[in-house]
Amino acid sequence: MVDEMPEMSLKAIGVVHNGLSTPPTPRSDWEKMTSEIVIDSRLTEALDGIEGFSHIIVLFWMHRLPKGDTPLMQRPMGNPARPLKGLFALRTPNRPNPIGKTTARLLERRGNILRVEGLDALDGSPVIDIKPYLPGYDAAIDATVPAWIIHD
Amino acid sequence: MVDEMPEMSLKAIGVVHNGLSTPPTPRSDWEKMTSEIVIDSRLTEALDGIEGFSHIIVLFWMHRLPKGDTPLMQRPMGNPARPLKGLFALRTPNRPNPIGKTTARLLERRGNILRVEGLDALDGSPVIDIKPYLPGYDAAIDATVPAWIIHD
Repeated sequence: MVDEMPEMSLKAIGVVHNGLSTPPTPRSDWEKMTSEIVIDSRLTEALDGIEGFSHIIVLFWMHRLPKGDTPLMQRPMGNPARPLKGLFALRTPNRPNPIGKTTARLLERRGNILRVEGLDALDGSPVIDIKPYLPGYDAAIDATVPAWIIHD
Repeated sequence: MVDEMPEMSLKAIGVVHNGLSTPPTPRSDWEKMTSEIVIDSRLTEALDGIEGFSHIIVLFWMHRLPKGDTPLMQRPMGNPARPLKGLFALRTPNRPNPIGKTTARLLERRGNILRVEGLDALDGSPVIDIKPYLPGYDAAIDATVPAWIIHD
């Protein structure tokens, strides 16, 4: 089944600038981090109207990950004291397709540049899509999570 | 800048089954639609723990889109009465990288099969990632949207 799938290749539409070559410690520092997303200037017009949204969804390629092994079971937050879980039950960056998906606050649009807060991408990450965040579509107001994910 | 980006190609991790070859009318019927996501059976173990979450984020490839032109400015909901907006300010499927991102309710996991509600993907769509929905990370509780998007 999966082997018959079409070829799927991505084009970068922009790049992240924030000077970060490694994740901050603690990871919660991402939340206040400001980044600039520089969109390919040939696509500037495609941003028109985005400035009306308080938040955007950024899809990006986690380009700094070492290539190679993607264990199917991993430990939450890489913590050796925690039991193994399937990678699709985790937000680990080590996934078959290293795509990050972050809801970020849009602070400013200036031409082809988006200044955002809370984007947990490293400097130089290729951006592959920008979508407006729609609360009624993207949020699940009655969502629940398992107890094992809460204890960090 | 963008031309120097690394080659980014995706692997399908699964496929959507729901019998839908075109979007439902009205589009709001997606919300109650049930689909099965059949994950590549070599990846079954990577789902372990997902059953504890009420919602998942599904990234998928919108494979039925006609290839070709991607206008930078498009009309919200394809409605000719509405003014043009940049495609990155819209959720139009016609984008440089045709990746859909949906928050779906997880009804059941059965081995390598996820039964979900509210996935707005057509039958046969390649699935490229499954992530657990984390309310504190994925939702923006103070999000606002522009007035032009509300009037549909």
